[in-house]
Amino acid sequence: MRVVVALGGNALLRRGEPLTAERQRENVRIAAQALAPIAREHQLAITHGNGPQVGLLALQAASFDQVEPYPLDVLGAQTEGMIGYMIEQELGNLLPFEQPFATILTMVEVDRNDPAFENPTKPIGPLYGEEEAKRLAEQRGWAVAPDGDGWRRVVPSPLPKRVFEIRPVRWLLDRGTIVICTGGGGIPTMYRDDGTLQGAEVVIDKDRASALLAAELEADILVMATDVDGVYLDWGSPGQRKIEDAAPEEMRSHDFESGSMGPKVEAACAFVDTSHGWAAIGALADLEKMVRRKAGTIIRRKTQ
Amino acid sequence: MRVVVALGGNALLRRGEPLTAERQRENVRIAAQALAPIAREHQLAITHGNGPQVGLLALQAASFDQVEPYPLDVLGAQTEGMIGYMIEQELGNLLPFEQPFATILTMVEVDRNDPAFENPTKPIGPLYGEEEAKRLAEQRGWAVAPDGDGWRRVVPSPLPKRVFEIRPVRWLLDRGTIVICTGGGGIPTMYRDDGTLQGAEVVIDKDRASALLAAELEADILVMATDVDGVYLDWGSPGQRKIEDAAPEEMRSHDFESGSMGPKVEAACAFVDTSHGWAAIGALADLEKMVRRKAGTIIRRKTQ
Repeated sequence: MRVVVALGGNALLRRGEPLTAERQRENVRIAAQALAPIAREHQLAITHGNGPQVGLLALQAASFDQVEPYPLDVLGAQTEGMIGYMIEQELGNLLPFEQPFATILTMVEVDRNDPAFENPTKPIGPLYGEEEAKRLAEQRGWAVAPDGDGWRRVVPSPLPKRVFEIRPVRWLLDRGTIVICTGGGGIPTMYRDDGTLQGAEVVIDKDRASALLAAELEADILVMATDVDGVYLDWGSPGQRKIEDAAPEEMRSHDFESGSMGPKVEAACAFVDTSHGWAAIGALADLEKMVRRKAGTIIRRKTQ
Repeated sequence: MRVVVALGGNALLRRGEPLTAERQRENVRIAAQALAPIAREHQLAITHGNGPQVGLLALQAASFDQVEPYPLDVLGAQTEGMIGYMIEQELGNLLPFEQPFATILTMVEVDRNDPAFENPTKPIGPLYGEEEAKRLAEQRGWAVAPDGDGWRRVVPSPLPKRVFEIRPVRWLLDRGTIVICTGGGGIPTMYRDDGTLQGAEVVIDKDRASALLAAELEADILVMATDVDGVYLDWGSPGQRKIEDAAPEEMRSHDFESGSMGPKVEAACAFVDTSHGWAAIGALADLEKMVRRKAGTIIRRKTQ
């Protein structure tokens, strides 16, 4: 079977952990142990988050004043390189030498007419005081918005339309290569009027990008690995209960917006709706069981 | 024909230029214009340098004191992502939409018993005063050495032994994909005693890595693009003269060590010695002519 595993941001770096290379590598090693059994049995493509890593690169760049900080598309490309390298090396260390690997840099198209461009909502980077935030907004053309105790830069989060490198990814999976791609939702790219491509200062929802990748690869299973063992109703209340198995229309009848689960559920449903495959959402440690439908929340059409 | 083009560091960033994203992109655009005619006629793999880019990331990291700077292998992976992205996007803008591209993250094996490890010679990063250099050496386990007016960190520069991702690169070239790989000489990787892989704090000679890649790909031509139109005898003297066409043994009978040409000549000779192909060294602007043996210095066996 062809399996796409989306490693959530929390699977690579827990909230509040220091962003050292060594800590990231330790977490990648844990993820690799969960991925290895799947890699031995199935065709495997791996996607991953990159939020904290882009944040660190931006902070480092901002503290060095001799060169203007790089835009988000370039930072995204840097993190696809770094995280892909760590996954490739650590997962490779658990598998036979003969296993081919490829980390493929991935550009993902966004539509410049996406309504998200009119309404930047995704906060990125550090907290600022109101005055500094407004000064930076003026100076750099940022949109800024209040967030908790301060202000942050906000950028649009448009929907992914196309994975440009989809054919190489497919060709390599066909040859049994483990492919790491579409990191951080892909490098946001859009068409200019003249038909050429340019990077975009946006953040693509990585769950939706993983769902698009999985559908375009005609994957059999999309597994979204996070730090919770499934999708819960009434999460956080005494009566919380896990959804074991449901169709997209049932999942959509609930409201998960309050947590980070909403985008994952929507992405899983989008994959099931646009492909022949089914999806699972659950804990990284349960990865192998999820592929056998023995753990996590399974989302599938009733006929599957 | 199968062509490997190695873009020298000077082809992407001229000495003294600011390292802004915009300037890098302008230079990549110029390189893309030289690469496009070759891409239209031949199978094409592209390698590139990354020295100034790694240097900038290291400076940015050093100026942000909340997270320990990342090691050289991780910085190398970041630059492969960034530079690969820019080349892929700018070259893609000059070619038909149907042209497939892939930037492949590349790990290159070095031998931990390479004598270079006993004798670190490759200077990296900024100039320090003697006292600070010695303090950093003590604190971080660096080797440091005098360099011009100050001191710099020096790291080993071992020979590349193997390109781990060679099969995916070959498979994609076979399908007509333009592949960008082995940036900066590849991410230096070596075996531990237990047979697993780890990153190495070294810099691989990127010309030798390009020659190894070209030989392993059974390339017909290796073109090394730099800012000089060929290899010269008595370079810089009134009697300087360009070598038009020579066999490896003739090239090796001269001494080019003084300039940056020495490593390019040695790498070109190594490729010719270990493959069926021939090599060219010359100016980026002459790329298309070099592939037709109409410009640059051609290095080939006498029977070719």
